[in-house]
Amino acid sequence: MTKLGLIAGGGLAPVEIARYLKASGRDYCIIRLAGLADEELSAHPGHDIDIGHFQQIFVALAQEGCKAVCMVGYVKRPDFDTLKRDEGGAAHLPSIQQAGRGGDDSLLRQVARVFESQGYAIEGAHEANPELLLDNGVQAGPEPSAAALDDVNEAFRIANAIGALDIGQAVVVAGKITLAVEAQEGTDALLQRIQTLSPVLIGRESARKGVLAKVAKPIQDLRLDMPTIGVQTVEAAAAAGLEGIVGQAGALLVVDKARTYARAAQLGLFIYGHAP
Amino acid sequence: MTKLGLIAGGGLAPVEIARYLKASGRDYCIIRLAGLADEELSAHPGHDIDIGHFQQIFVALAQEGCKAVCMVGYVKRPDFDTLKRDEGGAAHLPSIQQAGRGGDDSLLRQVARVFESQGYAIEGAHEANPELLLDNGVQAGPEPSAAALDDVNEAFRIANAIGALDIGQAVVVAGKITLAVEAQEGTDALLQRIQTLSPVLIGRESARKGVLAKVAKPIQDLRLDMPTIGVQTVEAAAAAGLEGIVGQAGALLVVDKARTYARAAQLGLFIYGHAP
Repeated sequence: MTKLGLIAGGGLAPVEIARYLKASGRDYCIIRLAGLADEELSAHPGHDIDIGHFQQIFVALAQEGCKAVCMVGYVKRPDFDTLKRDEGGAAHLPSIQQAGRGGDDSLLRQVARVFESQGYAIEGAHEANPELLLDNGVQAGPEPSAAALDDVNEAFRIANAIGALDIGQAVVVAGKITLAVEAQEGTDALLQRIQTLSPVLIGRESARKGVLAKVAKPIQDLRLDMPTIGVQTVEAAAAAGLEGIVGQAGALLVVDKARTYARAAQLGLFIYGHAP
Repeated sequence: MTKLGLIAGGGLAPVEIARYLKASGRDYCIIRLAGLADEELSAHPGHDIDIGHFQQIFVALAQEGCKAVCMVGYVKRPDFDTLKRDEGGAAHLPSIQQAGRGGDDSLLRQVARVFESQGYAIEGAHEANPELLLDNGVQAGPEPSAAALDDVNEAFRIANAIGALDIGQAVVVAGKITLAVEAQEGTDALLQRIQTLSPVLIGRESARKGVLAKVAKPIQDLRLDMPTIGVQTVEAAAAAGLEGIVGQAGALLVVDKARTYARAAQLGLFIYGHAP
């Protein structure tokens, strides 16, 4: 396999990919985005580089002999007007900023095009570490009741419809009623507002009700941005009184899988991998 | 025309219908729901009755010789477990509570069935007062730019798609990106969260951007619950930095139309009636 440059933003996903690359014996180096990449990544071969310093990233990747890059981890949309940049950043950031007006998908595709224009193949997080992917069926927590499976299927159906409209990735359905739809506000805000809805509609710790579905939009390039859940998602879903979480098997990243599944079991939430 | 019993919840819509009925010389009486109906309605012929006292409502309507009822105005979903009821309430509230688990549309349809079972025709607010309906084209505020018309059309398209999925009535689109979708949280919460989104995506007072679309779901019975806007909607849309509001001509109630349109003009927002 070709040598991989892992361009690492925040969170645990880059750490888990780095561990996997090391364990599997694949050649790699880490481009640690300054101020974002987890400290544990410093133990791996790599370079610390500011996010706007594209030239420095290209030089590091070339010196290392990388042929592919994997961009993963949390990166907040920067303030382009004040972002520090080297000559590579100066050359490429304007097109990225422009694409960003079309939404996050558009922004990420432009970043990918910049790397492809330099000769790098783009590899998805799930290609760099297939162990992160959600499997088919119940993965954690209690076996869903028939009513819960109705909500699983309805939430999955609505999430796919919302995605096809290029709106967002996540929905919450309870008692077959769609309680909330994610657009630009993100999954955390979506789950928080469930708690503000009528008690008639929602569940609670002692009587959980409703399912969070998180499904990629068809327009989304899964190599650049795959829907992701982790311990935090499980805890926010539990706080919202939900009964479970559903994603598409093979198309949802579960970060820190062992702990995420254990926490779901502990809180009494199921995690379900739906067939495409 | 038959005599109309106007069953009046809160807000200005019942007041405007009562004024219209009086001015147009139609026979009517008002069932003022206690604690909800506007004080101005006391100047009209009618009765003050608690919301759970169905028998009392039936008796009043029969004594008055009403043949049709129009249910209009704001009514908060009651706590059925503690709601005071007479024998009519005792007979009908359980089926209404049960239907309420299927959502507001289902609840209202059951209330309508109860009145129909007593021999009353159901009349919509727009039938009782057609002057409340939104007309075709720009009704208030500045002429929309070409970019704003793109957002008008996209917001209208997405709102119809969301409605067809039985999710909700309202969406906000800006720069052709769907910023927020309403499900169970209501339009106020939808507009409030626009202000929390990235400044890159949203407008502001000096550079308005984006359109609120408010469109009925196909499942919705317009005689029972038509999408509604008013001064408050205009002010909340302005606070969210929006450029305008679009509804379906002939299928959106504009309460307090003169003041609503004047306020929109004053704040620099357009109000647009889209052809179906």
